[in-house]
Amino acid sequence: MNVFNPWEVKGDIDYGKLIKTFGVEELPNIDDLPIQFRNNLLFRRKIIFAHRGFGQIINSVKNKNSFVMMTGLMPTGKFHIGHMLVAQQMIFYQSLGAKLYIAVADIEAYNARNQSLTDSRNIAVEQYIKNYIALGLKPENIEIYFQSDRSKHKEKSNTYYRLQNILARHVTFNEFRAVYGGISPGKMLSALLQAADMLHPMLKEFEGMVPVVVPVGIDQDPHIRLARDIASRCKEFQFKELCSTYHLFMPGLSGGKMSSSDPNSFIALTDTPQEAEKKIKKYAFSGGKDTIEEHRKYGGNPNIDVSFQYLKYFFEPDDKRLAEIYENYKSGKLLSGELKQILIEKMSMFLEHHHKELAKAERYLDRYI
Amino acid sequence: MNVFNPWEVKGDIDYGKLIKTFGVEELPNIDDLPIQFRNNLLFRRKIIFAHRGFGQIINSVKNKNSFVMMTGLMPTGKFHIGHMLVAQQMIFYQSLGAKLYIAVADIEAYNARNQSLTDSRNIAVEQYIKNYIALGLKPENIEIYFQSDRSKHKEKSNTYYRLQNILARHVTFNEFRAVYGGISPGKMLSALLQAADMLHPMLKEFEGMVPVVVPVGIDQDPHIRLARDIASRCKEFQFKELCSTYHLFMPGLSGGKMSSSDPNSFIALTDTPQEAEKKIKKYAFSGGKDTIEEHRKYGGNPNIDVSFQYLKYFFEPDDKRLAEIYENYKSGKLLSGELKQILIEKMSMFLEHHHKELAKAERYLDRYI
Repeated sequence: MNVFNPWEVKGDIDYGKLIKTFGVEELPNIDDLPIQFRNNLLFRRKIIFAHRGFGQIINSVKNKNSFVMMTGLMPTGKFHIGHMLVAQQMIFYQSLGAKLYIAVADIEAYNARNQSLTDSRNIAVEQYIKNYIALGLKPENIEIYFQSDRSKHKEKSNTYYRLQNILARHVTFNEFRAVYGGISPGKMLSALLQAADMLHPMLKEFEGMVPVVVPVGIDQDPHIRLARDIASRCKEFQFKELCSTYHLFMPGLSGGKMSSSDPNSFIALTDTPQEAEKKIKKYAFSGGKDTIEEHRKYGGNPNIDVSFQYLKYFFEPDDKRLAEIYENYKSGKLLSGELKQILIEKMSMFLEHHHKELAKAERYLDRYI
Repeated sequence: MNVFNPWEVKGDIDYGKLIKTFGVEELPNIDDLPIQFRNNLLFRRKIIFAHRGFGQIINSVKNKNSFVMMTGLMPTGKFHIGHMLVAQQMIFYQSLGAKLYIAVADIEAYNARNQSLTDSRNIAVEQYIKNYIALGLKPENIEIYFQSDRSKHKEKSNTYYRLQNILARHVTFNEFRAVYGGISPGKMLSALLQAADMLHPMLKEFEGMVPVVVPVGIDQDPHIRLARDIASRCKEFQFKELCSTYHLFMPGLSGGKMSSSDPNSFIALTDTPQEAEKKIKKYAFSGGKDTIEEHRKYGGNPNIDVSFQYLKYFFEPDDKRLAEIYENYKSGKLLSGELKQILIEKMSMFLEHHHKELAKAERYLDRYI
């Protein structure tokens, strides 16, 4: 396993080093991408910064050809702002016309986390799917499925699980160990099912041989690489090259990783505005100086300031306004408390609106329960 | 792995040693079993000689309760008289009212023998299923399925493959290694699917919690034990104890194992009577003495004579007649050539009849292709 820690916030992002470490490719200059990508905050701000095989997707968008965006969710804990990063990409690709495949990794939760399938189903629906819909995911042109219960169509189910079983011949234990570290039979089955998740949309029982893009955090690249390697050995299917994009991580409130077991490391999308305000005031790591005098004199560091990062990742979509905040904070004109207050206001508005959308989303959940 | 070689023919069968080596239980005295078992040649002659948990099946037969007989077939090579041993048991259990589950191990053939799913399907249908039907298997109250394509009912398919994935949490690599020796991801998936094959009939989407019996050769007991162990750890299903019976092996013509790659080690059920006659004359291992004089004086050994074994396993259903042959051969009254001739005549009649039945069986094959 690579020792790179993608959750560390340490100032300027060394994209070159990240790209070299993982052997991925840099995304083309944003001005060379179709207009829709330029309009997308995550692409424009290089939060999504690298890829494998993404040319296929760019061409599909340009030529209005079919393609699939595939992703998964681990049904544990509360849905929080860190999860929004992939949710935003779902909504973006849906707006581009992509068919979406969303796998609920309930088999992985069972095998790797001892969680019952029933608990997984409830958490997936109540926390994840509900929030996706509230965020704007449309329940059309989408397959949200449980790994344990792939489809209501027998050809689809048989094909999906057949693929899992067939992929097994084309991989070794050592390859699994290299990607997953300690490996057990349960984890191995989950890993093969994950590879099937990524590849099965290309089979004729699903979408046929269309490009599939899987957006992941950069630390997940070993999983992508493994699926790509296995696919290339499965000659009988003639899979297209699996595409992927890589994004940075949204830091936890204190600058480390968001952890489901530590509610003070994240803002949940069900937190009240008051709870969010309290967490930001108390826990959000600041890039400011120790005293107001020093801050005014030397300025703060927005690159390590968690409040600024949250504005950049999601809550301040206006580039010009974000640049002003950046400059004002860096120059010392904007104090840390003031920066936090900007985030608190944006976050409150977002949460209030989102909670109304959550209530409306209820009506779409029946089909998943 | 146990070093016991179940294919060796070495005179009197030491049932006690076999039972102790494998830790299985001896079957009750034949007179204490329901009449149907007494009427069955394989039970009566102790070719099926041991079991695990078989009391459940005896009770089901006595009380006319539902139960399942589950078995599998490896779709390679030609269907030969060795395969008849399990085929006869299928037909027997069907006559007892059991529902039959027959798994075509095409995933195992793919993962462990590099055979394509298409080849497996063709061999399974043309060699195995066709011969089963010709031997008397009825296409009713039976599920013959391919591991790669479990069912036309989506609940069934999802449930079967879900079980495979869930069982994985309840087993370790070391347990697999102990049973299978060298293990690869492909072999591990096949092994888990085999366990699912044996256990899934008990799930509510299939037959519900009825007893399931798996008849196997005694050397296959480690697989049964593994499935039983895994099942007992899967508390959420509350599986019934898996039942099994153990049979001896029908020896190959020369006394060793029948081998698909050596057509002179077996009689295929598609061999002509002339081919069978030639093979018996040329290859059937004889328990007789080197010269007629010695044979007349000291007698032959029917226990190691392959022709006698074939009569005992299948071709001479009349116990009294078989006992006469035994005594006459042992006393030297019956010569080896004469014993072979008895088998040749029985075998010819059987093959002629069987080839007519094979032609008739064609009409039932469409549903499997």
